[in-house]
Parts: sequence; structure tokens; C-alpha cells
Amino acid sequence: MHKFLVKCDEALKEISAQGRYRRFVALEKLADRFPYYSVTMEGRTRDILVWSSNDYLAMGTDPVVIEASIEAARRMGAGAGGTRNIAGSSPLHVALEEELADLHGKDAALLFTSGYVSNQATLSAILNSLPDWHVFSDAQNHNSMIVGIKDGRKASVHVFKHNDMADLERLLAAAPADAPKLIAFESVYSMDGDIAPLKEICDLADRYNALTYLDEVHAVGMYGAHGGGVSERDGVAHRITIIEGTLAKGFGCHGGYVTGDFKVLDYIRSVAAGFIFTTALPPPTVAAALASVRMLKADSARRALLFDRAETLKAKFRAAGLPVMASSSHIVPLMIGDAAKATQVSMRLIREFGMYATPINYPTVPQGTERLRFTPGPKHSDAMMDELVGALQKILLSEPAVTGA
Amino acid sequence: MHKFLVKCDEALKEISAQGRYRRFVALEKLADRFPYYSVTMEGRTRDILVWSSNDYLAMGTDPVVIEASIEAARRMGAGAGGTRNIAGSSPLHVALEEELADLHGKDAALLFTSGYVSNQATLSAILNSLPDWHVFSDAQNHNSMIVGIKDGRKASVHVFKHNDMADLERLLAAAPADAPKLIAFESVYSMDGDIAPLKEICDLADRYNALTYLDEVHAVGMYGAHGGGVSERDGVAHRITIIEGTLAKGFGCHGGYVTGDFKVLDYIRSVAAGFIFTTALPPPTVAAALASVRMLKADSARRALLFDRAETLKAKFRAAGLPVMASSSHIVPLMIGDAAKATQVSMRLIREFGMYATPINYPTVPQGTERLRFTPGPKHSDAMMDELVGALQKILLSEPAVTGA
Repeated sequence: MHKFLVKCDEALKEISAQGRYRRFVALEKLADRFPYYSVTMEGRTRDILVWSSNDYLAMGTDPVVIEASIEAARRMGAGAGGTRNIAGSSPLHVALEEELADLHGKDAALLFTSGYVSNQATLSAILNSLPDWHVFSDAQNHNSMIVGIKDGRKASVHVFKHNDMADLERLLAAAPADAPKLIAFESVYSMDGDIAPLKEICDLADRYNALTYLDEVHAVGMYGAHGGGVSERDGVAHRITIIEGTLAKGFGCHGGYVTGDFKVLDYIRSVAAGFIFTTALPPPTVAAALASVRMLKADSARRALLFDRAETLKAKFRAAGLPVMASSSHIVPLMIGDAAKATQVSMRLIREFGMYATPINYPTVPQGTERLRFTPGPKHSDAMMDELVGALQKILLSEPAVTGA
Repeated sequence: MHKFLVKCDEALKEISAQGRYRRFVALEKLADRFPYYSVTMEGRTRDILVWSSNDYLAMGTDPVVIEASIEAARRMGAGAGGTRNIAGSSPLHVALEEELADLHGKDAALLFTSGYVSNQATLSAILNSLPDWHVFSDAQNHNSMIVGIKDGRKASVHVFKHNDMADLERLLAAAPADAPKLIAFESVYSMDGDIAPLKEICDLADRYNALTYLDEVHAVGMYGAHGGGVSERDGVAHRITIIEGTLAKGFGCHGGYVTGDFKVLDYIRSVAAGFIFTTALPPPTVAAALASVRMLKADSARRALLFDRAETLKAKFRAAGLPVMASSSHIVPLMIGDAAKATQVSMRLIREFGMYATPINYPTVPQGTERLRFTPGPKHSDAMMDELVGALQKILLSEPAVTGA
């Protein structure tokens, strides 16, 4: 047998032994009843209340967004039919880029096939532009940023302690004064739900003449007066060199983007392989995203409801004695601390109580910090939350104590 | 000014000076009149006949495919709402993976957000699995394969001359006998339109105990009795370890995939970062692709018409004395040999004759081999071709000769 096949076998056994073998639950979203999904398990089909969608604001099932998708499919078909350069640019793509640039107060925007690709391709393009980059990367940056940074083969990479400004300043001060510098970080960190001190990072960037790259994927649509993210909320968007976002979470659709100065974006457009050599986003997706961005620019009430729902669930978890983790965002993580147990709690929740929350295991979070992650949205009612709290109490708090034996 | 901003400025000037600054033409596909698109240029809106779509079989505008997209949008919304592990797997995703595995006669398939990502993420995952890989890569492999191969930091990379079996064998023979080996190649090379000798590559793989990775993005849906690609046509699909394909070209939709043995795919599913950390494809796209794959499995007439159209255009180009390049596939490239001229011919075609063909410049093809690329499909009539030939003759053959002065 080829060594690689032996390796696959061994690796899968090890992953299973560690309790982190992933089985995807096939969930059929019910657009007219979201956050309910239809699930068929063990021969039985039933409706499940889902607590883990990243469609944070329920925009993906909004009738206006759905109609925009349908209208574009009828008018322009199911796919773009080419790269942006090979007949794949439509007026819809151009309009969405203009709308996103405006959302962040920037000159220009560039669409990518996903947020993952936007981070990887853009960071890779920037860090391969000059031979002596020094890049300062938050320790909890998303995999897509890490991969993009590693693509910069000649760049010196400095990882600073998560959200730790003293550590970031120490590293900035130690780097050569005249080397080009880039600070790469997120606003909302999606697994812990904490938020970066954007203003302090911009101050350090000014002091050390560093450019800034901000991933707002878990914030766009949700934070700021128009959904421009934490950088809009904190009034620092104009101080960030590149703001990256996604259309797949707060906006409920699909795809990613970056925004920034015209020349910087034009350079990325001209050299980033992950932008150039791939089919443009399909017109129905682009039309849906355009409708969603436009709606959310005006709909502050939906944003207010999101935060009300998140704070309500956190309070209910705390009152019930459940191990809710500290979070300053709309994300509500519940610490479990063990991969097999996180998976088991998730399975009991779905089997016994008809509710779904994803177990988050390594490599998404460090081993020993496995958790369930709840993302209550505008459509999760108080009654649904009480039902969830009751179920979690039964599963987590009434277990027989583990004895020393 | 920050060094990076200076660099952007300089690079853009250089790209412009080389005549390869890309301006995307915003083309609005007209689903009911494909391959006509609506274009607004210089204040004037008109219908343009497009010759460069990668929607080779016009499936993206097929009414059945469009209706599948619409029905899924109504039922499940515009986006998946999460990664495959975080509430983003639907029964549609599972069904499409089963359909694609069946198309290639494999155990399993795995969807990615694009063909680009499927190549990059899968090759990276394979080549990082063991410390001593030797990978043999065709010199004309697509950028996405090259990037995935470069991600395998510890792998020894051997580039063999394009489609040259003697060179491939020489390199295979020179590598350590017991090292794990992988041959990575395409079937149809999209810029020249030539096709790899798949059987000979499989024979060499057997002789040297190498695994095989085949990119069929420009062949799936179009070659083989059921659209399984050149590997189906040549009867060697069962000899290829991994067959990679796209849903964005022959199938007319969006997204990419790999197929192979269950254990290999389960390993990739469990470790490939570009699969794990990204939002699943949106339900309307998945539903449209599923309808398209199912239709094309049965529709050999559409495939026959594609090849009839391509051969007809090649013959008309040859008869007219136009510099058509040799091509054994459905792709019809016309050699121009200069970036500025390729761009200029394309612009004259659209402005003076209402037809569009993309200029293909560096970095997509080597400098000095710039070309226009035509992809006639089932909806391009003989009359349209005669109109095109007449326009190209006027532009290319009746130019004033360049004098020595």
C-alpha cells in the first residue's frame, strides 16, 4: 500500500481516538421558518432549532434578499461563466464593490470567492510585494490570515499576544525602523467573542509607520451605525489601510472582499493569484449580497435586536449556572473543555431536545478549550432560550459526578 | 509615503507600460439570449455577442438549472450560513457530492468554494502529510495547482516538460525508489487547448508506484459518455487517485470538488484548511449544479454539438487565413503575440463589431504568446461565426504593414 494511504488510515484513527472526528449533520434550512431546519437522523425527519448559524442577522432568509437572488438567476443565469477578466464581470459585481467601498468609507473594493480567499490572497500579495516586510499578527488570527502571511516567504513574522498592546509595541519597537510594517488583526474574534482595541492599534501603527489590515468578518453588517463593523463603531475606519469582510455571515450570502485606497486595491487586483485565476461570484449571490448590504445600511433596529438577543442569552446562561465564557460581542460560547464531551453534549441536544449547537473542537480552537458556540439572532425568542437553558441544565448540570475511581 | 504605496504605484505603471493593465468589461449576461450580453460602454448600451465564456455548454442559462437555483433560494435562502461543520451542510451538499463521486466512478467527493481552492487545499493537504514527498508537476499546470504544490514546504518538486512522457519518466526514475510520489497534471490545458496523454501517465505512475492527481476543470461535463471528463473518455478514471473538477465551466454554475477513495477524501476533509475554515457553497448554487450534473450525464447531444461548433470555427479560421493555434480540444486560441495588440484587437472587436473575445495576457500565458481565446458553444451559429471571421479579417489581415521606419 502507498505510504500516503497508510498515513490517511493512521491519521483518521488518531483523530477518532481524540474524539475530534467530524461528522457533518445535514441541516436543511427552512427559509420561511429560520432558525428552524429540517433534519433526517436515524430514519426520522424532524424540525430542529439551530443555535449555531453564522447567518447572524437572518439576512440569508430575508424575502428581499431571496427575491434579489431569484431575479438575478432568471435574468443572468446560475453562474458567472468566467473569471473577472474572462467575461465574468457584470454590472452587479461593479455595483457591489462600489457599495462595499462606500460602507467602509474607502475608495475601492474587490470581491473574492470567499472571506478565506480574500485574506489569503490579499495578505500574500502584499507580503510578496517587497523583500523586507515585517508583519505583526495577533496570536488568535484566523487560519486564512495565517496562511496568507505564511505565503509571504521573505517576510519576518512577529506574533503578538492576543489583543496585548504592550506586546505589540515591544515587537514594533524591536523591528528595523525603516522596514515596511503591517499589523494584521481581527475586530471580533469569533470563537471567544472578544473585540480588539482598534484605536490603540491604529495609534501604534501611526507611531511606528505601520500599515493596518483588519478582518471584520464577524462584525460587518452588525457593528457601526451602517453595519461598517467595529471600525465604524469606533470611528477609526479611515485609519485602517485595508478592511476585509465577508458576505457570508452578517450579510447572509456568500463571498468575501477587501476595501482600501484605489491604488492599493488596483495593485491587489492586478497581482493577487487567488483573485485573478478563479471564476467570479455567481450573479444570484452577488445580487443577494447587494440587496443585503443596502438593507442593513439602513436597518439599525435589526442590529439592536441582535445585541439584545445575545445579552439576554448570556444573562440566562449565567443565571442558570451554565459555564458561559466572557464575551463582549454577539457570540455566546459555552466552555466544555473536552472534545469527546463537546461532541456528546451536541448530540444529546439534538437527539433529546431537538436543538442544534455545533461542537467546536481542535483545530478550530486549542485542545482543552473545546466548546459549544451559540449565535442567537433576531429570530431567537425568549421562550426558545428558556427551552435551551432547560435542556443544557439537564445535560450539563445533572450528570452523575465523576468519581476518583 | 509608505514603501508599499510607492511599490503599488511603480508596479501599476510598469504593468500599464507593458500593455497588460487589465480593464474588466462589465458584461451583463442575458439568460434568455445567451451568448448575447448587454454592455454599457462610453454611455451607450447595446447587445454584444460573447465568444469567451467558460460556460462552455450554456448550462448556466439552461431553464432547468435556473429553476433549480430559484427553488433552492425560496426554500433554503441565499447562503449556507456556516462552514460544513457549523450548520452549513445541507442534504443538497451531500447529494451533489454523491452525484460527483458517481460521475467519476469514485467512492466519495468533497465540495470546495472554487476549483482554485480545491486544487490548492487538496495538494497542500497531501504534500504536507508526509515529510519526503516527490511531486512531478506538468510545466503548464494551472496557478492553483502550483500554489498548492508550493504549500508542501518539505516536498521535492520536479517540473516535467509539458505533456512530455520521456521527461516525466526521466524524473521519476531519478527520484528515490521508496519515496512517496505524486504526479499532478491536467487533462485539457485551457490556454493552448491541448490534451494530456492520460493512459501513458497512468502507466508511468504504475511503474514508479506514484499516485496521480488530475485536474479536469476544462473537461468535466464535456468529455466522456457521461461528462466524466477525458479520464472517462479514455477509460482510465479508475487508475487516477484523485480527479478534481469544477462546477463553474462545463456545468455552468460555481464551486469546485475532488473525488477519490473514501479514506483519502476523509483525510482531506479532516485536515485541509481551505475546506474546513470557509463557508459552504450557497444552496442555490449547489442545487443548480446538481441539476446540471444530472442533466449532462444523460445529454450526449449537447456534448456532440459543442465539438461540432469548435471544429467548425477552427475550420473557418483556417480557411480565412487567421492565425488559429493547434488545439485538440473545444478551445480555439488565436495567436497575437503581443499584449498591447491583443488588448487593442479585443477593443476593436467590441467597439466596431459588437463582439467580445478576451485578450489573454501575462501572467495567464507567457509573454510573447498573448492571444485571443474563443470558446464557441452549442448556441454559436454558423452565421455568428462568419460574422466573427469577417471582423477578424478586417482587424488582423488588412492592417497597414509596419515599416522599418
